[in-house]
Amino acid sequence: MVAVKKSRTRLDPATRADLILSTALRLFEEQHYTAVSVRDIAEACDINAALIYYYFENKDALLRQVLAQAIGQLQASYDASERHALNPAQELTLWLKVHVPIAPMIIRMVKIMADYSASSIRDAETDQLILEFYAREQDFLETCLRRGIAGGFFHPVDVASTARAISLQLDGIFYASQARGDERIAQDIENLCAIVEGPLRIPRR
Amino acid sequence: MVAVKKSRTRLDPATRADLILSTALRLFEEQHYTAVSVRDIAEACDINAALIYYYFENKDALLRQVLAQAIGQLQASYDASERHALNPAQELTLWLKVHVPIAPMIIRMVKIMADYSASSIRDAETDQLILEFYAREQDFLETCLRRGIAGGFFHPVDVASTARAISLQLDGIFYASQARGDERIAQDIENLCAIVEGPLRIPRR
Repeated sequence: MVAVKKSRTRLDPATRADLILSTALRLFEEQHYTAVSVRDIAEACDINAALIYYYFENKDALLRQVLAQAIGQLQASYDASERHALNPAQELTLWLKVHVPIAPMIIRMVKIMADYSASSIRDAETDQLILEFYAREQDFLETCLRRGIAGGFFHPVDVASTARAISLQLDGIFYASQARGDERIAQDIENLCAIVEGPLRIPRR
Repeated sequence: MVAVKKSRTRLDPATRADLILSTALRLFEEQHYTAVSVRDIAEACDINAALIYYYFENKDALLRQVLAQAIGQLQASYDASERHALNPAQELTLWLKVHVPIAPMIIRMVKIMADYSASSIRDAETDQLILEFYAREQDFLETCLRRGIAGGFFHPVDVASTARAISLQLDGIFYASQARGDERIAQDIENLCAIVEGPLRIPRR
């Protein structure tokens, strides 16, 4: 216990906020968003609940921060990828593949979003966060497809419905890996890339 | 209260079992499988918990029955559809469309399966039920595709991965309707039918 207390006092505010967030994420994942209290998170962090309220307004604010961090990580992975000089078709494939190494984080995000949405709790800012995440995804996919069609890389498909289908396929892949308990994310994304590169793609001239 | 008690004594065993099941389904949906106790279900049914144990061994048995009933309803809807004299491509489209009118029930099933799988509870029979549900779905889709390809209705795609993609798309559609809170199931299934009837389909000769 002495060791724990010692290390506890050493934590700077940023590290402590990170510890609270990662603990909240773990508890939201293992249990259910509605079943986890700020007190549970405090106990798991071995700190006083009042200290959590010093960093985060309430549980909703914690949830938003957890989701925002996950969304940020996905975006950062894509931004860090080598995508200069790629054509729109290659960019789409790269974007899909970026999901593979960070799959465990996305599974958590998908689960927490579903738990939140299924609950009777409504928080306007969280709703907005989820809405914007999917709107940005749809927008990225539509832009890729539109540029790909204009550049002669893709067949002239309906951009909005094709983007939606790709986005739903991703949701399905991450949902299924949880619900079916099979570990096939890499293979399923490979499969989705093959569809994007196959029927959608105009053969190279 | 007198009226409730009166109606309660009138229930025959089958009706009472149905009431318990539908109440369990509602509570599992509103809350979380792990958060609902047999006592909660008994209270919501206005009966004694012991009576639930008379019909169902335990909560796991209740969950299995709830899932089995949902799976059975999906199968019954398909069996009741007019599918004599359909070719494999039409049969696939019909099967997809059968999901639309019973969407609310499937959303519940999808949520409960995910909640169960994400929990630390493992029940061999429930695992088997979920596994078999998806295996049957995959099998149906593969058979449709194989017959469709053999009959010249579909392009010669990879049967296993295409069936998997269709199954994941369905999961994604039902997951998204919950997580994103948009009510687009009919439109999304229409979109999936268009993909099956479009790029997959060999134009009519």
